[in-house]
Amino acid sequence: MTKVYVLNGPNLNLLGVRDPAMYGTETLADVHDRCAVVASEHGFELDFRQSNHEGELIDWIQEAGHAVRDGQSIGVVLNAGAYTHTSVALADAISGLSVPTIEVHISNVHAREAFRQHSYLSAVASGIIVGLGTYGYEAGIRALAHQKNVLRP
Amino acid sequence: MTKVYVLNGPNLNLLGVRDPAMYGTETLADVHDRCAVVASEHGFELDFRQSNHEGELIDWIQEAGHAVRDGQSIGVVLNAGAYTHTSVALADAISGLSVPTIEVHISNVHAREAFRQHSYLSAVASGIIVGLGTYGYEAGIRALAHQKNVLRP
Amino acid sequence: MTKVYVLNGPNLNLLGVRDPAMYGTETLADVHDRCAVVASEHGFELDFRQSNHEGELIDWIQEAGHAVRDGQSIGVVLNAGAYTHTSVALADAISGLSVPTIEVHISNVHAREAFRQHSYLSAVASGIIVGLGTYGYEAGIRALAHQKNVLRP
Amino acid sequence: MTKVYVLNGPNLNLLGVRDPAMYGTETLADVHDRCAVVASEHGFELDFRQSNHEGELIDWIQEAGHAVRDGQSIGVVLNAGAYTHTSVALADAISGLSVPTIEVHISNVHAREAFRQHSYLSAVASGIIVGLGTYGYEAGIRALAHQKNVLRP
Amino acid sequence: MTKVYVLNGPNLNLLGVRDPAMYGTETLADVHDRCAVVASEHGFELDFRQSNHEGELIDWIQEAGHAVRDGQSIGVVLNAGAYTHTSVALADAISGLSVPTIEVHISNVHAREAFRQHSYLSAVASGIIVGLGTYGYEAGIRALAHQKNVLRP
Amino acid sequence: MTKVYVLNGPNLNLLGVRDPAMYGTETLADVHDRCAVVASEHGFELDFRQSNHEGELIDWIQEAGHAVRDGQSIGVVLNAGAYTHTSVALADAISGLSVPTIEVHISNVHAREAFRQHSYLSAVASGIIVGLGTYGYEAGIRALAHQKNVLRP
Amino acid sequence: MTKVYVLNGPNLNLLGVRDPAMYGTETLADVHDRCAVVASEHGFELDFRQSNHEGELIDWIQEAGHAVRDGQSIGVVLNAGAYTHTSVALADAISGLSVPTIEVHISNVHAREAFRQHSYLSAVASGIIVGLGTYGYEAGIRALAHQKNVLRP
Amino acid sequence: MTKVYVLNGPNLNLLGVRDPAMYGTETLADVHDRCAVVASEHGFELDFRQSNHEGELIDWIQEAGHAVRDGQSIGVVLNAGAYTHTSVALADAISGLSVPTIEVHISNVHAREAFRQHSYLSAVASGIIVGLGTYGYEAGIRALAHQKNVLRP
Amino acid sequence: MTKVYVLNGPNLNLLGVRDPAMYGTETLADVHDRCAVVASEHGFELDFRQSNHEGELIDWIQEAGHAVRDGQSIGVVLNAGAYTHTSVALADAISGLSVPTIEVHISNVHAREAFRQHSYLSAVASGIIVGLGTYGYEAGIRALAHQKNVLRP
Amino acid sequence: MTKVYVLNGPNLNLLGVRDPAMYGTETLADVHDRCAVVASEHGFELDFRQSNHEGELIDWIQEAGHAVRDGQSIGVVLNAGAYTHTSVALADAISGLSVPTIEVHISNVHAREAFRQHSYLSAVASGIIVGLGTYGYEAGIRALAHQKNVLRP
Amino acid sequence: MTKVYVLNGPNLNLLGVRDPAMYGTETLADVHDRCAVVASEHGFELDFRQSNHEGELIDWIQEAGHAVRDGQSIGVVLNAGAYTHTSVALADAISGLSVPTIEVHISNVHAREAFRQHSYLSAVASGIIVGLGTYGYEAGIRALAHQKNVLRP
Amino acid sequence: MTKVYVLNGPNLNLLGVRDPAMYGTETLADVHDRCAVVASEHGFELDFRQSNHEGELIDWIQEAGHAVRDGQSIGVVLNAGAYTHTSVALADAISGLSVPTIEVHISNVHAREAFRQHSYLSAVASGIIVGLGTYGYEAGIRALAHQKNVLRP
Repeated sequence: MTKVYVLNGPNLNLLGVRDPAMYGTETLADVHDRCAVVASEHGFELDFRQSNHEGELIDWIQEAGHAVRDGQSIGVVLNAGAYTHTSVALADAISGLSVPTIEVHISNVHAREAFRQHSYLSAVASGIIVGLGTYGYEAGIRALAHQKNVLRP
Repeated sequence: MTKVYVLNGPNLNLLGVRDPAMYGTETLADVHDRCAVVASEHGFELDFRQSNHEGELIDWIQEAGHAVRDGQSIGVVLNAGAYTHTSVALADAISGLSVPTIEVHISNVHAREAFRQHSYLSAVASGIIVGLGTYGYEAGIRALAHQKNVLRP
Repeated sequence: MTKVYVLNGPNLNLLGVRDPAMYGTETLADVHDRCAVVASEHGFELDFRQSNHEGELIDWIQEAGHAVRDGQSIGVVLNAGAYTHTSVALADAISGLSVPTIEVHISNVHAREAFRQHSYLSAVASGIIVGLGTYGYEAGIRALAHQKNVLRP
Repeated sequence: MTKVYVLNGPNLNLLGVRDPAMYGTETLADVHDRCAVVASEHGFELDFRQSNHEGELIDWIQEAGHAVRDGQSIGVVLNAGAYTHTSVALADAISGLSVPTIEVHISNVHAREAFRQHSYLSAVASGIIVGLGTYGYEAGIRALAHQKNVLRP
Repeated sequence: MTKVYVLNGPNLNLLGVRDPAMYGTETLADVHDRCAVVASEHGFELDFRQSNHEGELIDWIQEAGHAVRDGQSIGVVLNAGAYTHTSVALADAISGLSVPTIEVHISNVHAREAFRQHSYLSAVASGIIVGLGTYGYEAGIRALAHQKNVLRP
Repeated sequence: MTKVYVLNGPNLNLLGVRDPAMYGTETLADVHDRCAVVASEHGFELDFRQSNHEGELIDWIQEAGHAVRDGQSIGVVLNAGAYTHTSVALADAISGLSVPTIEVHISNVHAREAFRQHSYLSAVASGIIVGLGTYGYEAGIRALAHQKNVLRP
Repeated sequence: MTKVYVLNGPNLNLLGVRDPAMYGTETLADVHDRCAVVASEHGFELDFRQSNHEGELIDWIQEAGHAVRDGQSIGVVLNAGAYTHTSVALADAISGLSVPTIEVHISNVHAREAFRQHSYLSAVASGIIVGLGTYGYEAGIRALAHQKNVLRP
Repeated sequence: MTKVYVLNGPNLNLLGVRDPAMYGTETLADVHDRCAVVASEHGFELDFRQSNHEGELIDWIQEAGHAVRDGQSIGVVLNAGAYTHTSVALADAISGLSVPTIEVHISNVHAREAFRQHSYLSAVASGIIVGLGTYGYEAGIRALAHQKNVLRP
Repeated sequence: MTKVYVLNGPNLNLLGVRDPAMYGTETLADVHDRCAVVASEHGFELDFRQSNHEGELIDWIQEAGHAVRDGQSIGVVLNAGAYTHTSVALADAISGLSVPTIEVHISNVHAREAFRQHSYLSAVASGIIVGLGTYGYEAGIRALAHQKNVLRP
Repeated sequence: MTKVYVLNGPNLNLLGVRDPAMYGTETLADVHDRCAVVASEHGFELDFRQSNHEGELIDWIQEAGHAVRDGQSIGVVLNAGAYTHTSVALADAISGLSVPTIEVHISNVHAREAFRQHSYLSAVASGIIVGLGTYGYEAGIRALAHQKNVLRP
Repeated sequence: MTKVYVLNGPNLNLLGVRDPAMYGTETLADVHDRCAVVASEHGFELDFRQSNHEGELIDWIQEAGHAVRDGQSIGVVLNAGAYTHTSVALADAISGLSVPTIEVHISNVHAREAFRQHSYLSAVASGIIVGLGTYGYEAGIRALAHQKNVLRP
Repeated sequence: MTKVYVLNGPNLNLLGVRDPAMYGTETLADVHDRCAVVASEHGFELDFRQSNHEGELIDWIQEAGHAVRDGQSIGVVLNAGAYTHTSVALADAISGLSVPTIEVHISNVHAREAFRQHSYLSAVASGIIVGLGTYGYEAGIRALAHQKNVLRP
């Protein structure tokens, strides 16, 4: 069964608690459940994780990349949180294995601090979805499903 | 019947002709047809337009904004092409009437020239979808449909 | 009879609707009426226009410039809206014909986004009036009347 | 009787002597006289001062602010000269007491050196009048009179 | 008969009137006549236009691009005036259809304001001719004629 | 018993070894002991930790944030070492749970390399104490104790 | 008896009046009283002053510096207000006489305008205390007392 | 007989060898021959040189400048190669003697590295011709011939 | 027996898989084997590691630093991968213990993206070797061997 | 008798005390004495002053300017200390009355902090003398004497 | 016999004299002798030169490039001294003939002035060796020998 | 007999010809003659040279440096012309041999183009004299004579 990875970066475990005016009241468990529904709709197995550790996220991206190479995964939906703006290493992991990756941000980062408007990931991502709230995860999975033959970071 | 506006900016009439390696071989007519299908799926009437004139796009955004205020439209999917990067006036039109707007880019603008990585529109858009090819239009309409009560630029 | 041109740029047709906390509740028609009173006080004929099109504003500036050269106009009060910040071409029209021009902004642009703090027009305008609300239009006409022999951009 | 403060910063005592091509031949005494006429037209008492000392200007702004709070003044017309471009402290005085302040510049500072195009005062002023020659003082007093209930920096 | 397009941007209709010390006393009609002579010398039909509207210039570039593709035109000599410095959309029109384009500036833009020293067009133009006065148009047509097989933006 | 967290970032385990001219000869154990005294003076339990791992520091900030929410902690004294200058994720952890946080630096970072003069943490910290040597830790605990009802990042 | 100088810069005489949401409702007299208590606790005589004049503050820093050299003072707690961000001369006074100086800011300047995030004083101060409200003054005096033998700017 | 100088800077002796995809396969000898034909067409004597030494190029520009002053030369066609981007001294030589100079670049430098997009020479050159291949030399000589009475750097 | 540490940062475990045109086809195991040969040639014991975790790399640098202090190691050859460009903490670890460190990059980072051209490590490294492919590791060990008495970061 | 003004800015009263390694051990009284000798050598009366107040220095510059206009002074030797780098108002005083002014710095400001390498005064000074120690004052007086008919800022 | 060129730029003839703390006490003759030994070890003929003239260095790079093309040289070890940071022309010579070039710096330029941290040469060099003292020359020759088939700038 | 070197850079051979409004009508021969008088006044032998070649100027600086070391020269008065702004190599020559050097500029470079306001030489010069016309040479020699025991770059 084909896997879809949904990987979450630092502080996303606080979803629903952290600044609800910005991020809404859904928790990461709610996001997981919605993703599970959408994944199964497309016949994908969902692998949903969160970590505050940059190194762990790199490990996971590499794991996903090998799975894609082995035909066992369709790619990654990645909300890298604040590492989006500071991590060259995460971007190298994505491009190093050409992992099909949809970058997702819940809030509209372009309406926030200047430093949130640069992403090291965007240049190597397949696509970017910003500001659609937690719906962005669902849209990310659908995009991977839709374009599974053509996406390449 | 509720309208969804899909507005296209400069040079998008060249779709399918301009740099197919970057933009694919679908024409704007193809995009129109796909949007029509998705719109009708959600019970929306599609209003699909293209212009090379910044002023005309502003007129249209205002028209859409009034329609939204009158309860006759769900909002706008906007691919403003190169005006994305240079038009404060387009952004003012969106924010001036608080028009729910999904900003769409076919190619991954973040993997291109530096000047394409700044958008005046993003800070006032409801959401941004980048690099999903012409599928981004479909995702944009679905996002408007999904969040019709909560989106506000 | 000597004309005074009052030219309005993009989205100023939304006045009274767009962000009343910032721009107040007067409409552009209200502004027109006030300008008409002030103009006639000085014995001027008012020519009051609005456009969302940069090219049309350039055409109008040129028309006004020719009228000034022919002794039929005292000059222009110009609220170029967002084109203030992006249009070198409008500035060239003003300086190309040395059109006496009072640049007006209703809100205090210096207390807003950074990109609103640069004006291509200011260096070629005769004078600049900022943040006085719609009263700035009246002040602009009075300034033209007051200094009609000495102003030159 | 309600006071209007007209405060002048460094080197404005040289008016009429300093670079007449830029500033004209009127002296500060001439400006005082014109201001006195306009002030009395509106039933205001004029308090007209000049200092080369930044600290003294801050003292005066504070004095004016207290007068405004006590209902004894309508606000300040301020030509802060070169301190416009370097004094955060003056701006803090204006905003600290919310002193209604019209910032005035005789010459068109936007057509001069780059460092004259940034003003620390503009973001906290009620309005800004630039390049109208000494007429700007008159326009400043009229603007204070016109908007006396609504202006707030 | 093969066409050569000579397209002129904003304010070039003021040629001969605007700043003669910078631009000379020839009018755009004079430039047209000279271009007509040079074009016919090479057996080309001249299509000479001017517009203050960015959108119209984009329409024309596209028209010229289609003509080139159909073997009916040799390319474009383009003096985009102030849009040179602000229009990504014009540049996209040129590169979108790979229109052979010689960018021409009458004055030496590199000896003027800093913002005139960046051109969005230059990176996609076939060649650039600056500061030769109206002779630059003639040189542009000759360059297109000379290199008609090898130029590609 | 109310906890006070004292969290130390990368290389602070080298204290006393690393550059004694800059950081002094006290070790982190010495700092711990002093903090324990000050904490008990105020009736707080001290929780004192060090890690070279950004992710672990984020985990700890979140843990502290939950303790504060549960009324079991007064807040955090944080010396994030070099992550101060590079970690948006740490800042998000602080602001995500509104953790009362006193940012401490032993040396005067403003007298060192330029890149040490920007802190991602300062904008979300309750207070910042710089250059007081290891005494800054003590001052940080006292500040938390002093202001326990009013501090919020 | 050893003196501690507490020197206040421009607009700090407005404390309690100016923006209470930012600065609280305590007046400078309240701050004086608290400082007097803390100073006497350590056996210091308090010398507490305020001025809006940069030159006067420089005179005072020099006076304090001479007192320190003569063994009659422990140093300075300095809240230089807006001069923090613009005065090289104040910094030179501190470093010129190596005056032990604790720089204090009541509000968290790092969470405010960009221009408030650079201090000319920090590089020459002994320590910096930011965002602890008026408690920062108390902490500053304690820091001077604590480290009286080792502090040197 | 009137001379036209064609001066070539560093590495232009490699023409035909260096990066033929960028510079073509013509050698500098070929360019010389073409220039000789064009020069003689206009009745000019060609003086064609190349040097890798900045100082030698300055000597030659001065020599040419004196020849122009003596009525023995029409001016210089200058391809300064990489010195274009780094040599203030070459620019001073041109402006010091007001040498009519046409700056030529074979490739389109504006489509290359950022550092090739600034020329110290352009501000003092009479005209600039970029991206026309080796034809630019011919166009440069013709431009000098055409405008021989009016060109002045 | 004296140790030489060869430490590898994020994504270097992908060597041979990631972008072979850039990094070649050798794997990290191949690099290990070559290093083992060179190390034993100099009588060193090789300690060869890789991690995607910044914190772990800091731990290892500290471990190596202590070994150097104890006379049990000659120093570190460090390829920090993407952390080179973002990690102040790694640089502090090197300088905190004055660990002799040769910074190695397989590819020529100066011919790649702008953000790869700044290294936080270089200023504290003993030496830097760039672009020699995997041979750089060998050269790094030889450099440590050669200069073992004089290197200090 | 013709006066020469020697004006000294903030902290120059500390000369001989402040950082002798940088400024030497001569006091300002020593400088005065040397200046008196040189002035009388040229038949000038010396007017030597120091102030820490920017406004007072402006007053003095204006006084000197009027004296020059009245033929009673040869000009000013000005060491403005730290105001050199921050005071537009001082520069305006110099240029406002076209006061012949030799800017002097004792130390080589170009070998110090970056912010000391920009002077607002230099663009309006007649000449600048840097890094010659206190001899610069003597050289400044001699320069004024030497060029008394030709100097104009 | 295959040649290896070792080319030295400006001021390297001062080696051993210039700042021994930075560059050591070896002279350029010492470096020559060491290079001769290493070259002969690999069977290369050493061609070792120094010049203060940028043009001469370009001539030599071109000479070496031709030798490489003719199979008579393995490439260049280049210490371009200060021209590293300012010479586009040297870089063009290297890339123009694709000369295999190892850029060497004796000192760690990354630990010095900011302007020494940018090299025009690095982007076109085969490899870069920094901070290994004069051993860098030896390492450079060995690198050329090692990779003689694969290096290409 | 002790030598004083007066070295002139590019285009200074044009003195008297180049832009007399800026540089005056004296020729370099006139400057030589004046320098000869001043040198002999102090008992120095004058060595006066000019070159357009950067490399030659470096050779001469080195020659002068060796003469200073041998006690045969007092130092250098250097007007490096345009190389002032672009030559790191010249600065390295000065600092490499610690050559006492007075940097002289005839015109006030701070009142000209921005790129003339940065000097690579100033940070390593003993002193800098700007804008005193050709008198600056004389002042430079006198400064060397005056301070001959204490000057060191």
